[in-house]
Amino acid sequence: MKGNALDYRSLRTKNRQDVRQAIRSGSYRGHTAGLADGYLQANLIILPKIYALDFMRFCQRNPKPCPLVGVSDDGDPYLRTCGQDIDIRHDLPSYNIYRNGALSEQLHAIEALWSEELVTFALGCSFTFEHAMERQGIPVRNIRNNTTVPMYRSSLPTVQAGPFRGPVVVSMRPVAQNQVHKAAAISAHYPLAHGSPMHWGNPQTIGIGDIDKPDWGERSPIGRDEVPVFWACGVTPQAAVQAAKIPFCISHTPGCMLITDIPETAEVPVLMPEPVEGVRP
Amino acid sequence: MKGNALDYRSLRTKNRQDVRQAIRSGSYRGHTAGLADGYLQANLIILPKIYALDFMRFCQRNPKPCPLVGVSDDGDPYLRTCGQDIDIRHDLPSYNIYRNGALSEQLHAIEALWSEELVTFALGCSFTFEHAMERQGIPVRNIRNNTTVPMYRSSLPTVQAGPFRGPVVVSMRPVAQNQVHKAAAISAHYPLAHGSPMHWGNPQTIGIGDIDKPDWGERSPIGRDEVPVFWACGVTPQAAVQAAKIPFCISHTPGCMLITDIPETAEVPVLMPEPVEGVRP
Repeated sequence: MKGNALDYRSLRTKNRQDVRQAIRSGSYRGHTAGLADGYLQANLIILPKIYALDFMRFCQRNPKPCPLVGVSDDGDPYLRTCGQDIDIRHDLPSYNIYRNGALSEQLHAIEALWSEELVTFALGCSFTFEHAMERQGIPVRNIRNNTTVPMYRSSLPTVQAGPFRGPVVVSMRPVAQNQVHKAAAISAHYPLAHGSPMHWGNPQTIGIGDIDKPDWGERSPIGRDEVPVFWACGVTPQAAVQAAKIPFCISHTPGCMLITDIPETAEVPVLMPEPVEGVRP
Repeated sequence: MKGNALDYRSLRTKNRQDVRQAIRSGSYRGHTAGLADGYLQANLIILPKIYALDFMRFCQRNPKPCPLVGVSDDGDPYLRTCGQDIDIRHDLPSYNIYRNGALSEQLHAIEALWSEELVTFALGCSFTFEHAMERQGIPVRNIRNNTTVPMYRSSLPTVQAGPFRGPVVVSMRPVAQNQVHKAAAISAHYPLAHGSPMHWGNPQTIGIGDIDKPDWGERSPIGRDEVPVFWACGVTPQAAVQAAKIPFCISHTPGCMLITDIPETAEVPVLMPEPVEGVRP
């Protein structure tokens, strides 16, 4: 398979079916930022079904960090409402395997771990509003610098559901002072991609001590005329699942997302026909 | 209690706490359209917990008819993310009790039926976009005529989850030909209230044989220059629950909704603080 390895640059011009095929076949194992432009990408959480209802309640109660865009049937490896042929066992470049709350391994496919007991959850991701900000003239630092966005455990609490609780994890993007309100308004249009910011300005207000030491990702330097803007982050449910120390859980490896068939501009996260415009009889 | 009975007109000027108190005490048992203006009202489904995960998947997969705005813990009669003190056993004017898929009784409180086995679901309702259309100059026929909106079983299918399946139920409002696109655009802003229309124009295109014979509600006459516009309707999950013939289920009586503390304009359906706007250090 290594002989077929595709590089990121060559995939950027491919459509989403080709990108997904490259991932499924093992030819591409890197991050998915900027790939299959225009389609919703998703965070992944796979859990034993005994935790599924509580986890789904956790997402419903914390829609900014955890915008649900798809849920499988028990034991079904296909995420049928997110795409024509999404096989969750192969269609992500890399998976994190957690056992009793600790990362135990990273894999490029999870067929060997699949069982009838598992339920898959897909949650919207920030790529969607980043694209919209870039299109509307607000440069996104982590895209321009080709770095992973910095992420922090905040002091903002999630709303608990069963064993799932903990802090809201936030991502930070520096925005020019005079563009903060525009950035907030643009992202508010994408509730399936974390929506409007949770906070901007002083990081300490939301419990972040050192902005240059993110808990995940890489630091993003903040310019003189810039304000740090914080959005709810899809790592929140991974942190909640880890804190709950459930025996077994699979997630995507941060940055290596599921590419869905749902357009980024979709009103609701399902594959559905456009409204039928008929002729009055 | 009857001695205290309040009429609809006197409640229209009251705030939502007073309206909820009047309902809770049994002083008001009528419909909630136009009450507690500005706050999200919700359809109600209460089910035994063994059906809760499948029902929640049904809602996630059918977000236009079933926009989830709240889910309780197992056996918890409080809907904590929808309001400060919502006690689901008393806070609706009227409840429908279904046994094995058939309506068995209507009650004004359900304390006697409550058990640790029950899970409550609240789903957004069309009042929200009706208010927005009226504010923006599109008259809503059923409001002007003080009738119940006509509802129809369509030929559009829902996406199945476990035992829950069946047609999308749609509501119809006649709209002036030159305002149809505006009405569609306004309602698209409220995905928690069914969002944009499913269809407009020929009713037969979506399987409706006689527009003057709705399956629920009252007929709405369509004028010469008007087009029938069809939105997904919150009766869809009631129809799915009835078709599944589950042994026991409670819903609101159509028109008698739950009044939440969530503003109609909320980005996400949870009580949450506004983004904190701090000062740059």
